[in-house]
Amino acid sequence: MLDRVLQTIDAERSETLERLKDFLRIPSVSTKPDHARHMKECAEWLHWELDNIELDARVMPTGGHPIVLAKNVHRTGRPTVLIYGHYDVQPPEPLELWTTPPFEPTVRKDENGYDAIYARGAVDDKGQVWCHVRALAAWQANGGIPVNVTIFVEGEEEIGSPHLTEFITGHKDELRADIAVISDTNQYARGLPAITYGLRGLAYMEITVFGASHDLHSGLYGGTVPNPANVLCELLAALHARDGSVAIPGFYDGVLPLSQTERGLWARLPFDERTFRNDLGLSDLSGELGFSVLERIWARPTCDVNGITSGYQGHGAKTIIPASASAKVSMRLVPNQDPAAVKSAFEAFIRSRLPAGVRVEFVTHSRAPGIVISIESPAMRIASAALRTGFGVEPVLIRGGGSIPVVSQIKSSLGIDTLLVGFGLPDDRVHSPNEKFDMDAFFCGTRTAAALLHGLGELKVT
Amino acid sequence: MLDRVLQTIDAERSETLERLKDFLRIPSVSTKPDHARHMKECAEWLHWELDNIELDARVMPTGGHPIVLAKNVHRTGRPTVLIYGHYDVQPPEPLELWTTPPFEPTVRKDENGYDAIYARGAVDDKGQVWCHVRALAAWQANGGIPVNVTIFVEGEEEIGSPHLTEFITGHKDELRADIAVISDTNQYARGLPAITYGLRGLAYMEITVFGASHDLHSGLYGGTVPNPANVLCELLAALHARDGSVAIPGFYDGVLPLSQTERGLWARLPFDERTFRNDLGLSDLSGELGFSVLERIWARPTCDVNGITSGYQGHGAKTIIPASASAKVSMRLVPNQDPAAVKSAFEAFIRSRLPAGVRVEFVTHSRAPGIVISIESPAMRIASAALRTGFGVEPVLIRGGGSIPVVSQIKSSLGIDTLLVGFGLPDDRVHSPNEKFDMDAFFCGTRTAAALLHGLGELKVT
Repeated sequence: MLDRVLQTIDAERSETLERLKDFLRIPSVSTKPDHARHMKECAEWLHWELDNIELDARVMPTGGHPIVLAKNVHRTGRPTVLIYGHYDVQPPEPLELWTTPPFEPTVRKDENGYDAIYARGAVDDKGQVWCHVRALAAWQANGGIPVNVTIFVEGEEEIGSPHLTEFITGHKDELRADIAVISDTNQYARGLPAITYGLRGLAYMEITVFGASHDLHSGLYGGTVPNPANVLCELLAALHARDGSVAIPGFYDGVLPLSQTERGLWARLPFDERTFRNDLGLSDLSGELGFSVLERIWARPTCDVNGITSGYQGHGAKTIIPASASAKVSMRLVPNQDPAAVKSAFEAFIRSRLPAGVRVEFVTHSRAPGIVISIESPAMRIASAALRTGFGVEPVLIRGGGSIPVVSQIKSSLGIDTLLVGFGLPDDRVHSPNEKFDMDAFFCGTRTAAALLHGLGELKVT
Repeated sequence: MLDRVLQTIDAERSETLERLKDFLRIPSVSTKPDHARHMKECAEWLHWELDNIELDARVMPTGGHPIVLAKNVHRTGRPTVLIYGHYDVQPPEPLELWTTPPFEPTVRKDENGYDAIYARGAVDDKGQVWCHVRALAAWQANGGIPVNVTIFVEGEEEIGSPHLTEFITGHKDELRADIAVISDTNQYARGLPAITYGLRGLAYMEITVFGASHDLHSGLYGGTVPNPANVLCELLAALHARDGSVAIPGFYDGVLPLSQTERGLWARLPFDERTFRNDLGLSDLSGELGFSVLERIWARPTCDVNGITSGYQGHGAKTIIPASASAKVSMRLVPNQDPAAVKSAFEAFIRSRLPAGVRVEFVTHSRAPGIVISIESPAMRIASAALRTGFGVEPVLIRGGGSIPVVSQIKSSLGIDTLLVGFGLPDDRVHSPNEKFDMDAFFCGTRTAAALLHGLGELKVT
């Protein structure tokens, strides 16, 4: 049956592409209030498409932009797959840098001669949502989808999903599933499709050091009052040891050692450190001793200052001792680190080093655990097979250094793992002008989505 | 003869006050282009007043606002005194905080019941310039000024005197003198007139640390690239040792130890550390071990961060590794420290600690040496006697923690010391709304200026 489904997908390529263009023409920019009607239009369009393939589709209101939810008829005894995606896009500006307008999708060759479709949202995430919709359509045209499916497409991902937690926790029964699938990540490289089986978490803190009640003249007071800017620097400098590791006591509690299997898998990935470095304009890389670049990004926690502000920042000189100094500090966490414990350890470390005469305040901006799926799990094996079917090559198993908040929300609210099977390429210019989706990736992705539904049919129902 | 001069001053108090009000009514705000005509008007007014007391007065153009220069007939064999002041004032805003309008000078009681004249420029510096002009007038009315006098009033002090160096070096012969006098400082407290016999210098640097060519995603790159914000904090944290001293090798080269005499003089000054602390809203002071608060401010060099900027500084969170981070760092210097050597030592220290993968750039915003006059010098003894005559009490000898750039310019260009004999009070709200000049201080200051001319007549001509 999968073969017939794949044949249908191949036969309908041009219709699939034309309909994707319709999807991409709707300027569903979630952050702009004057695009509210386009958000609604986009949700309705998707609702109609899902309804059209015999799913029970609904546009569901939230405190912000609506969520589109659709299901086939769920039968007991069959595994249930939750497919998440988003129909909103980033603002397209600066418009003058687009070769063709962001909401007039155009197929043309990229700089390496490969066909791609250019539009805002081409790959992030409308194009990848469309892979799943067209895979579902092909199954429906060939006797029906082999698993219970719930597809769940939100309209606020690009603005931080402010209503997602409320929605998920408020619709736990409707969203109950055995496994989740998200296609909002990349292949490792062209011709190397990937499963992202782990992500880092995040503890993002803001720290402000307060000294005198107002800025002081550095001549009249310098040398006798604590300077919050100097103090902040001393506190932030203490966060790292000389070997590049994080010096906060307890920071590494729970961090899992990397298995030899994983180190081996990653060591075999093509990675040119010199190209990586040159692309960033850096003469040298840095980081924790004893780990490769990929290991540092994918499997080691970090502590980075994201911004600092204090005192006079204009042109020239102003001789003041600032009344306060603040910094945004984010710690990327790895699976099995406890974000709450890390936050507490950070605050305790800072407080323990605070000199007399200043006080400190903290704000927590976000806190999310790292996540990982066992590379030996049945779902991972099914996903690998689906990518093999879809792309015709063996996929690689990678992790990501960033966070995808919905993955930890699905884990904590619904208790299930997420397969991150994305079809983008690293040079797709996500969030930038001339965003694209490679045409081969698009069609192989659609095939993969179809194969994945087939494979997941064999998943054990919990 | 001094007695008759002082009698004239006392007899003409009300005229002196009325003419000061005329001076203060001219809104000579140097920083505002739309006040250019008031600047000219003010210079012309002062020119006329100086001409009126039989001085050879001129309004001299500069690249900005004009300088008013006036002299009596200089006779060889008599010492020459250069009196410096400024006729420009700070902007008066915010206007709504003034009890009476800033350019409608009003005499009324201050919060402690003392009569004072309220206006922008009352004490900084028109009122104090006026003390000197009226003292010169009283001498002219009683047989002539007993020394050669050059009075030199600029119109750009509040905007950093951008044309002063050029003017002084271009008019060295005209400005040649044996001693300079400036009244633009304070008494130590009410009833404690002071001579400021030392000032700190300044080396004001800006340092920028550069990493990758653009801001990077802290998830995708964190842990493997140098973070300029973290690096900057580490560099700035290293500037101080644990005991509060500055850790730059060579920083203290040339610093003179405080004499027991000076320590004794300062230890006897009334100083309430608790009030000082509370006024600043601080629970504790800080600073170099082994020195009192006044010693730290007046006689010890410092290193303070005046401002820092890097990365994301807006509301909430942005997960970036900034491409650069910069800080403004000022070092207050004490007499006999070499600003050029300190600047070099600072840069060498930073470069020696710079980790791989980042680069650094420096900008020098200003560089001026500290200055000090021997408290045993004849000029100091003359100034003390003049304050005794003017105020009827023994003055105290203090230093200042800030810099008055013209003092080091006079030293380097004309080779002479400056007597800083100022009549203000610490609560005069200089640069703030409701600036005032205490009426007693104003008249005692005028008497002091007259007595100083008398005393300086005995100075040895070099």
